[in-house]
Amino acid sequence: MPETQSVYSSDLAGVVVGETAISDVQGEAGVLSYRDIDINDLVDVPFLHVAWLVLFGEWPTESEKRALKSFICQHAALTDNEKLLLGQVNRELHPMLMLQGLVPLLEMPTEDTLGRGVDAEQGLFIAAKISSLIAGHHRLGQNKSILDPIPGKLRHENFLTMFHGRAPTREQVRMLDAAQILQMEHSFNAGTFAGRVCASTLAPIQSSISASIGTLFGKLHGGADQAALEMAIAIGSPEKADEYVRNSLANKVKIMGMGHREYRAVDPRAKILKPMAVELCRDDESKNLLATLVAVEEACQREFGAKGKEIWANVEFYKGAVFHSLGIPTHYFTAMFAQARVYGYIAHFLEFRPQNKLIRPRALYTGTPPEAGKTAA
Amino acid sequence: MPETQSVYSSDLAGVVVGETAISDVQGEAGVLSYRDIDINDLVDVPFLHVAWLVLFGEWPTESEKRALKSFICQHAALTDNEKLLLGQVNRELHPMLMLQGLVPLLEMPTEDTLGRGVDAEQGLFIAAKISSLIAGHHRLGQNKSILDPIPGKLRHENFLTMFHGRAPTREQVRMLDAAQILQMEHSFNAGTFAGRVCASTLAPIQSSISASIGTLFGKLHGGADQAALEMAIAIGSPEKADEYVRNSLANKVKIMGMGHREYRAVDPRAKILKPMAVELCRDDESKNLLATLVAVEEACQREFGAKGKEIWANVEFYKGAVFHSLGIPTHYFTAMFAQARVYGYIAHFLEFRPQNKLIRPRALYTGTPPEAGKTAA
Repeated sequence: MPETQSVYSSDLAGVVVGETAISDVQGEAGVLSYRDIDINDLVDVPFLHVAWLVLFGEWPTESEKRALKSFICQHAALTDNEKLLLGQVNRELHPMLMLQGLVPLLEMPTEDTLGRGVDAEQGLFIAAKISSLIAGHHRLGQNKSILDPIPGKLRHENFLTMFHGRAPTREQVRMLDAAQILQMEHSFNAGTFAGRVCASTLAPIQSSISASIGTLFGKLHGGADQAALEMAIAIGSPEKADEYVRNSLANKVKIMGMGHREYRAVDPRAKILKPMAVELCRDDESKNLLATLVAVEEACQREFGAKGKEIWANVEFYKGAVFHSLGIPTHYFTAMFAQARVYGYIAHFLEFRPQNKLIRPRALYTGTPPEAGKTAA
Repeated sequence: MPETQSVYSSDLAGVVVGETAISDVQGEAGVLSYRDIDINDLVDVPFLHVAWLVLFGEWPTESEKRALKSFICQHAALTDNEKLLLGQVNRELHPMLMLQGLVPLLEMPTEDTLGRGVDAEQGLFIAAKISSLIAGHHRLGQNKSILDPIPGKLRHENFLTMFHGRAPTREQVRMLDAAQILQMEHSFNAGTFAGRVCASTLAPIQSSISASIGTLFGKLHGGADQAALEMAIAIGSPEKADEYVRNSLANKVKIMGMGHREYRAVDPRAKILKPMAVELCRDDESKNLLATLVAVEEACQREFGAKGKEIWANVEFYKGAVFHSLGIPTHYFTAMFAQARVYGYIAHFLEFRPQNKLIRPRALYTGTPPEAGKTAA
């Protein structure tokens, strides 16, 4: 495709900014694949194996699986310095600001023990730290001590134990694996793109990942997950969904978690998450929350349908019900998202760096010509 | 200008991504203006007055000048918590990683004491903190205690005192004011654009500024300042410049601080900084460094000239000599850049937020069709 000269696009929605072989978002068909494999074929694979596939474009060998598991577990144990640093962060600070802030402050490894280059080593090091920073921040917020991972345990078994202070069930680990695999990668989304712009100046990987996390935080992106479940809680019950949706549309209030810029069909991730949410939401409170979400989606579809338009829930919408049932507080939802998406960020960093090009767009200047006298300070 | 559909641009060099009235880069003419005023007419104005102009598009009134000066001085005093947090950061960490990391961890004010809105208040709060974090990090690295600003003193008088532990001369303050004014704003550069992408998800101002700082860090952007002076130090003397330049060009090694993607003429900032450097570099070591820089620029111009091309030093090139003469170590150069450019970041955040639009480009997928058997993990 020939490169273009002098065009205007304020949201870049029609602008291809590069090539990637990591994931493919087929918006019209509602299909998402990582490394040519449909996500429906990936949700039941162990989380770290999918992470390796996303990063390097091939499945790990048996020895790579062992090395990766042990590397992640080793670095998921926060050092004394990291614990002191986390302990110094305001307990009330949003976990996404905590992550954006602490990632650049980590002391990076400079070896290449996994044989995939120093950048990959550093990326996986950051990925290991992120989940422990989330769990540690949550523990400190409850005035409890930070827990270390246990070697030999599965990735999300360790995470849930470190977060809650008690071991999860096998089903909970399996559900978290699946939900996190679905959130791992999504082509040039805003967060990944911000990280790419950052990396394009030859900034190091921790700067790039931190920039991505900061971008994911906004509620027009990852932050929609927290906003969507908070909306459901505020609505309170399924029978109030209809009125809420009608009022929102009348007042042009965005309904969080509904619709996605890239999909003109059902978000393939929502299609997997919805039955998972049904399976997990068993107590009355969870059932009511889920029923409220379903009622909001149906009300949206009725209202949009009346105008001849279609709309579906996106990945953020039912994910909240899944995380809620796993005991994750709403204000940690987006940090959970970051914990999974970081593997996508690393993959894009590794893919982009060898063919690096500075990304610097242009602005249309709308100032007025210099006025006489305006120079007087 | 009509918005465009489906084009390809991997560096966005030809893509206009939005409108701005903050600054105008006239690359062909070699002219830079802030709010319609040529930078040549701004370098002698007090630093904070130019900052106000850049932020709000008008000069501050006398009472606004007083309020701004007192606001910045008040918040430039780090709180006990901020000092503890800074104290916990590895002393060896690059100051740019320290800044990128600590900005999201700051506890933001939520009032509007300056009457320009909470976002502006928070932006100026961050700007005040950044210079103190730089000075404090430097002091701690020297095993000295963090110093507080003194009310009533000029902005850069306080900064240099807090950084060095001794008061600067009037001339040093004037030179730092001018150098920092020249670095304050430069339209949609990579750092500003990364902050814009971050802000476009409705992430808060501290996330956006942190993302910008991380992007500025790369040596194809702000990090070129450190790299350029380190190059001059490594070359050692003017008579070795010729050989260095010829070898670099033969081996396709980029010569830091030479050339700028936006200018097809002398970088107007370099034109002001070069005589400043000459004025400031008085001792033998500084003179030798400056002469080496001049010799590198001349050698580049000879080599490029022989191929019928033109090249000039950019803002990073002579700035290093100015900062060096002010006693700023090379690895603090880019943080000094951030300390000035943050006002530009705030201005763009304030300009963009009311007309916010999610920035999300597209990717060209280059994966191969799914292979049979590839799904087996």
